[in-house]
Amino acid sequence: MRTRKKKWAAGELENNPRILRNESEYFGRLGEYFGDGLPIYLELGCGKGRFIIETSRQIEGVHFVAVERDETILATAARRAEEKGAGSVVFVLADVSDGLDFVKAGEISRLYINFCDPWSRKKKWAKRRLTHDTYLELYEKLQIPELFFKTDNRVLFEASLESLSRRGWLVKNISLDLHNSGMENNIMTEYEEKFSAFGPIYRLEAQPQAVAHIL
Amino acid sequence: MRTRKKKWAAGELENNPRILRNESEYFGRLGEYFGDGLPIYLELGCGKGRFIIETSRQIEGVHFVAVERDETILATAARRAEEKGAGSVVFVLADVSDGLDFVKAGEISRLYINFCDPWSRKKKWAKRRLTHDTYLELYEKLQIPELFFKTDNRVLFEASLESLSRRGWLVKNISLDLHNSGMENNIMTEYEEKFSAFGPIYRLEAQPQAVAHIL
Repeated sequence: MRTRKKKWAAGELENNPRILRNESEYFGRLGEYFGDGLPIYLELGCGKGRFIIETSRQIEGVHFVAVERDETILATAARRAEEKGAGSVVFVLADVSDGLDFVKAGEISRLYINFCDPWSRKKKWAKRRLTHDTYLELYEKLQIPELFFKTDNRVLFEASLESLSRRGWLVKNISLDLHNSGMENNIMTEYEEKFSAFGPIYRLEAQPQAVAHIL
Repeated sequence: MRTRKKKWAAGELENNPRILRNESEYFGRLGEYFGDGLPIYLELGCGKGRFIIETSRQIEGVHFVAVERDETILATAARRAEEKGAGSVVFVLADVSDGLDFVKAGEISRLYINFCDPWSRKKKWAKRRLTHDTYLELYEKLQIPELFFKTDNRVLFEASLESLSRRGWLVKNISLDLHNSGMENNIMTEYEEKFSAFGPIYRLEAQPQAVAHIL
């Protein structure tokens, strides 16, 4: 969802200390930015940040980087992170389709994708899905060892299971109805809370082949 | 579901030409039994046979073998096959947990598993599921190149996706709500018709690693 640009957002983007700006010297050097060798977890498409803010409060000893392509939404997330006393989380304004050039291979220890755009209306749009084979290839190149994925979109989840299988990822902890599966500590996104009344939430964890074979 | 033994069933088992009896000289030599080199598709747990009878009427150029462990149910299926003018389908009284010793490696071209027992009440029962790793290993040894699987049991389907992933099977044509997915030519089992009102029907197709890598 794109929002109209709002004046306050520009100021927030400029001044909020949690926003890692494109021009930063640490762009592409997240490890150095945090500087303490702790794991870094990345969320693609953080929206207004509810999930990553709450997650950063619950999981200690980890740094979080949240990506969002809409600058007003990103500004909202960053502002909220300050207001709510988030843990170690920074926000990056970026479109994932540009290739995550701010991330170095081996730098990210977990990837969260929550309720990404299902691109389900036209068949030719399937390759835009963040779980499409070409994106999985990108995550493999970046040596990301695990993916945590949630969606309420059935067609997207079916396609994701198939693309993960095609690329030999190991899937586990699959839930086809997360809110009725007894999973503890599920942190809901804004979207999830709103839309879970209309159907099941699907969730899985997955590891690329190279990682799955080590275990 | 076990049924009480019924008198007529013994006669049916003895005399119905569609029942391949354990003592048959063709037991373990299905290819020779059919004798024409056409593909053989196997259904595990055929119940009263509605699925396999209708499938045998729709798919030509294929022989079908249906396995059921309850002899009264098997007798019912065989009798129905005669009454309804089934295609080339024979029935075998066998418990899959005995290891499908009536099948030779390379003899079966497709495996159907429809609404098998989910064994979901106790954790230690998981290994009895027909999609558990140990059964997948059996299907691999028998060089069965594809599995078509349906169930209405969420936990069973989740576990099946995970065991298929663990053993490196390629899953495709996944449907998490078969009856609302626009799949044409779905042939329903008795059970499926009765229980699809209570929740989604899950379905997938899968190929073992050795086969998936050839394609």
